[in-house]
Amino acid sequence: MSAPKLNVSRRIRATPYTPCVEALGVSGYTVVNHTVLPKGFEKTVEEDYWHLKEHVQLWDVGCQRQVELRGRDAAKLAQLMTPRSLSNAAVGQCLYAPLVDDKGAMLNDPIILKLSDDHFWLSIADSDVLLWAKGLAVGMGLDVSIIEPDVWPLAVQGPKADDLMAKVFGKTVRGIRFFRFAWLDFCGHQLLVARSGYSKQGGFEIYLDKPDLGVQLWSALWEAGIEFNVSLGSPNLIERVEGGLLSYGNEMTVENNPLECGLDQYCTLDGSVDFIGYKALRAIAKIGPERRIRGIIFDGPSCPPCQYPWPIRKEGAQSTEAIGKVTTAIWSPRFENNVALAMIEKGNWSAGTKVLVESGDGFVRNGVVTELPMLNNSLEVLQR
Amino acid sequence: MSAPKLNVSRRIRATPYTPCVEALGVSGYTVVNHTVLPKGFEKTVEEDYWHLKEHVQLWDVGCQRQVELRGRDAAKLAQLMTPRSLSNAAVGQCLYAPLVDDKGAMLNDPIILKLSDDHFWLSIADSDVLLWAKGLAVGMGLDVSIIEPDVWPLAVQGPKADDLMAKVFGKTVRGIRFFRFAWLDFCGHQLLVARSGYSKQGGFEIYLDKPDLGVQLWSALWEAGIEFNVSLGSPNLIERVEGGLLSYGNEMTVENNPLECGLDQYCTLDGSVDFIGYKALRAIAKIGPERRIRGIIFDGPSCPPCQYPWPIRKEGAQSTEAIGKVTTAIWSPRFENNVALAMIEKGNWSAGTKVLVESGDGFVRNGVVTELPMLNNSLEVLQR
Repeated sequence: MSAPKLNVSRRIRATPYTPCVEALGVSGYTVVNHTVLPKGFEKTVEEDYWHLKEHVQLWDVGCQRQVELRGRDAAKLAQLMTPRSLSNAAVGQCLYAPLVDDKGAMLNDPIILKLSDDHFWLSIADSDVLLWAKGLAVGMGLDVSIIEPDVWPLAVQGPKADDLMAKVFGKTVRGIRFFRFAWLDFCGHQLLVARSGYSKQGGFEIYLDKPDLGVQLWSALWEAGIEFNVSLGSPNLIERVEGGLLSYGNEMTVENNPLECGLDQYCTLDGSVDFIGYKALRAIAKIGPERRIRGIIFDGPSCPPCQYPWPIRKEGAQSTEAIGKVTTAIWSPRFENNVALAMIEKGNWSAGTKVLVESGDGFVRNGVVTELPMLNNSLEVLQR
Repeated sequence: MSAPKLNVSRRIRATPYTPCVEALGVSGYTVVNHTVLPKGFEKTVEEDYWHLKEHVQLWDVGCQRQVELRGRDAAKLAQLMTPRSLSNAAVGQCLYAPLVDDKGAMLNDPIILKLSDDHFWLSIADSDVLLWAKGLAVGMGLDVSIIEPDVWPLAVQGPKADDLMAKVFGKTVRGIRFFRFAWLDFCGHQLLVARSGYSKQGGFEIYLDKPDLGVQLWSALWEAGIEFNVSLGSPNLIERVEGGLLSYGNEMTVENNPLECGLDQYCTLDGSVDFIGYKALRAIAKIGPERRIRGIIFDGPSCPPCQYPWPIRKEGAQSTEAIGKVTTAIWSPRFENNVALAMIEKGNWSAGTKVLVESGDGFVRNGVVTELPMLNNSLEVLQR
């Protein structure tokens, strides 16, 4: 599909920052959680990649909607929804957590923010977790209020994020630890500020719960950022693939389980955690997952966007059967090759396995399976 | 927001008909249920409006995803989800049904297709009903399988739809009654064909459950349609507003209940129907809804798309308080005025009430409240 236009309506929600990103020249959007996510700018994806790794960017990630669980059974419900143990979670902590159904199938992979012992926000990827939480609570008769609060995350990402944030929020911000949050003053209003974000370049996410401060917040950060070469940005596809950051709906769907997604470390399967899907996931763990998410580095020229999963075959194999599929792919200036995330079948997922990628444009390309995140030497096998 | 581009990925799913609509020159999309819905064509919306009312169109509505409930408790779960009584529903029937939560709040408004006594498809608007159904089933321990089957609706809409469909499926298709479906042969495969669709111009929806027949089905309909002046189309905004067809996410959200949406006829509140939200909805009905969806006809010039709800004020009122909001609006060549759908507060929703609409482009326009669907004489009050 070649860059069609996005038709707008109330249903595809704008964010408090939309006027700012439009004034700065956004040219493209995608849609996440019924909300726009700016994606196209004056910079190319490659220029944006280098900028993100060297400077600092503002990202309108208002589409990362919150599902608020609050009340007597909030902690119980949060735990029922994820195989990650929340028993030692601290107030002020952010926890990346796969959500699974009764079959152990992936429903989402939010960051869970613990605001207090009976108050949680799930900062979600692209599926209506609100409805899953509501269904469980109604079905089980839980005493918990479940809403989508009027909260709009804004991300400040890149190596100069600390300097920029300190100018606006004061030096306290430098003391926030990774995946922790604090409440900081902005114009007399306390905002939740977390050291987190959908890149590997460091930075913060500001959870604005007063949307009419949106333009003011954006402007304050933008003006303070000029000396740090601040830029309008968004999750960068090259950086995300190299860093092994997954995207629900792209790398994994309800067809996958968290073990296939390499999220074993977030699954407590010793029986000590009471979550929905425990039996199913334990049974899968016993046999081992049938497939795993891996990286692939493969030959140029620059590949098109991956809209349908692309078949991966084994180099030299007699069989024409696919041994996996590419789910996201893009040209990497760092590796001077294409990089991809892919789901690879058992027996074929070792780093270094040579493969052939059918990249949707008629080419069959030589590639190699890599670990995630991709390392500087990930390319060596392909070049041998 | 001015016609930005849509960034594509696997997460925003294409349909089996995407190659066909792209070959025919689609220029714009919106996103519904994580799936593209073609919206922009060579024709203007006005040209498309007249064409739809005179000829026949093919619409790629693959985004109308199905939630399949199947098993011993399927009928029980379907009924729990909607205030519409399903007890007399026949196999082969399609039922428009609001879905509500425990507060009586709108979660979606699908067409429910009864395939057999223990097998239902919910053909959904834009929210993940799959997660709501799964949550309830898991929470209540129901014996029901809940999946999104691989089914891709294609709509044939317009006054010549019967003639076109009869050429492809045989004359049996003419005998299908409104909101009923039959299984008809196509290339040796039985397809569910319903007399239904998201327009008031008549027609069918074909529920393709074999996606690799997609291009063949589209092509067969297209070729048979040439003599009927067939065109590529999609839900037409002018026709939809004049006809009073609602869109979940636009006209109503989880902030509204079905009585506000004028869906009283689909709410059985006498205690004979066991659904979630019964108590809440009955309490609302006792007092009466606080607001209602109505039509508005208002002055030109042609208004911009309504991306944020626009305030409606009462003509001549001292107070600056809004008495409602416009949710969808567009220029109508039939009324030679703008037409809109709007949520109007109690005391102001009588047809003929004169109002002022702030149309988001700096204009304040004279308007009048109308019944839905809009009638030929709806305009008279405004002109007096």
